[in-house]
Amino acid sequence: MSIAYLNGAFLPLDQVRISPLDRGFLFADGIYEVAAVIDSGLIDSASHLARLQRSADALGIRLPLSLTEIEAVQKQLVARNALHEGLVYLQLTRGADATRDFLPSPDTAPTLFLFVQDKPFLNVPAVTTGIAVATMPDLRWKRRDIKSTGLLAQAMAKQAARDAGAQEAWLVEDGFVTEGASSTAFIVTDEGIITRPYSQAVLAGCTGDALTALAAESGLAVIRRPFTVAEALSAKEAFITSASTLCQSVVTIDGQTIGSGTPGPVAMRLRALYIAFARATAV
Amino acid sequence: MSIAYLNGAFLPLDQVRISPLDRGFLFADGIYEVAAVIDSGLIDSASHLARLQRSADALGIRLPLSLTEIEAVQKQLVARNALHEGLVYLQLTRGADATRDFLPSPDTAPTLFLFVQDKPFLNVPAVTTGIAVATMPDLRWKRRDIKSTGLLAQAMAKQAARDAGAQEAWLVEDGFVTEGASSTAFIVTDEGIITRPYSQAVLAGCTGDALTALAAESGLAVIRRPFTVAEALSAKEAFITSASTLCQSVVTIDGQTIGSGTPGPVAMRLRALYIAFARATAV
Repeated sequence: MSIAYLNGAFLPLDQVRISPLDRGFLFADGIYEVAAVIDSGLIDSASHLARLQRSADALGIRLPLSLTEIEAVQKQLVARNALHEGLVYLQLTRGADATRDFLPSPDTAPTLFLFVQDKPFLNVPAVTTGIAVATMPDLRWKRRDIKSTGLLAQAMAKQAARDAGAQEAWLVEDGFVTEGASSTAFIVTDEGIITRPYSQAVLAGCTGDALTALAAESGLAVIRRPFTVAEALSAKEAFITSASTLCQSVVTIDGQTIGSGTPGPVAMRLRALYIAFARATAV
Repeated sequence: MSIAYLNGAFLPLDQVRISPLDRGFLFADGIYEVAAVIDSGLIDSASHLARLQRSADALGIRLPLSLTEIEAVQKQLVARNALHEGLVYLQLTRGADATRDFLPSPDTAPTLFLFVQDKPFLNVPAVTTGIAVATMPDLRWKRRDIKSTGLLAQAMAKQAARDAGAQEAWLVEDGFVTEGASSTAFIVTDEGIITRPYSQAVLAGCTGDALTALAAESGLAVIRRPFTVAEALSAKEAFITSASTLCQSVVTIDGQTIGSGTPGPVAMRLRALYIAFARATAV
């Protein structure tokens, strides 16, 4: 059993228990981050911690540890679990009040929970085959810039995508793709690499941010504008980014082949650039 | 310490613990109901149980007990806690998978948690003074007909309303009031009693449903159509309904006085009718 962390204590994951009065359980009053681990190093850590701080600030949830201390906990979990390749999951909630009330008590201590997942993602079949995407209506709330644990709409979209034979859902609102259920969405056209600009309609993607910076450094044009499903279907390439997939080609959308139907050169190049960046900057 | 219920066991609330891998905690993949208790009787129980079933069906979460068995658990909790007046809270989640994945395991047993709150609501000052409401943007997801625990937007609206000196938030979308953060919204004009029709934009209110039926039986016209904030501000009366407030007059909205500024005759009459109905049909 892997070792997890809860509010200052390291203990076996199956011994971690929380109160059902935790506002994370009762109200989804919490936020989370998922950081990748490669060769026992935390990937893109500063970016994930900065986003954690932004989410916490947006909700007025106090971080019980400094970002430096949180990173130290993450590294301890990697070490204690001898994690080579996988994920570190972190969830921060407003904590367990004495009873259930929409209005939180100002004295409640937040809940900080972390655990690791031993999960290879560097050499998985999806990298060479590409993945299938299904488009789904974007049913989420209007503050998607906050990485909250209110993920029911995403879980529903993922299940509907699976039922349609796809590995990811691209969420669609007013005809435009917002993002993936758990990833950032990109297409490649003659115009360049296109991805949606940031607003309250989408989450700022840490992996996507690093990847677009790498693309720009390599002389690849990145255009931040919304794109339609029709544009995606006629794109030369499509791909997703996230901490747990890094960068994966999308080879079909709603059953229709994208480009050549195999992972395209832009996505493959960006994936390689990202992995090199990740290894070089791991902590 | 009050006695609660978790997955077949009755135990002190402060001894109830759940796994942090519960999908209710990780994904807000759960639903809930709140039933009022008056004179140790469960109020409007069949209506709440029917809505529980609808929410569970919408998400494909299996009820671990029949509705009859669930009601028996609720009644046991009322008895074991000698609850005279208060609430029975029920939460059902898709349960704790072995790890975190948006796609649930089909074998996971759901989590059923209930506890009671000893909370007087029949004779509280708000009944005679009326309450203040503040309007807030409706930031919620698009399946508000499902009574899910993804309540962060509601909690944020309640906090913003409190900061504005109000006891409830009325959520506004495209200029129209959808509903309260934890209640159904009504106004009274020369046209009659106006409340929003049901759709995926609002939750079907159990207390509101019973109350509108009682109004119709009493010859009061109930019109189901959306209304604007401007209409509410110029209404003769405004009120909210919910399991925990029954029916309470709204005397100010965004600081502006509604009608006479005191609880109006329609709301007071409907409250009395509802309480009589509640006592007569309690189980």
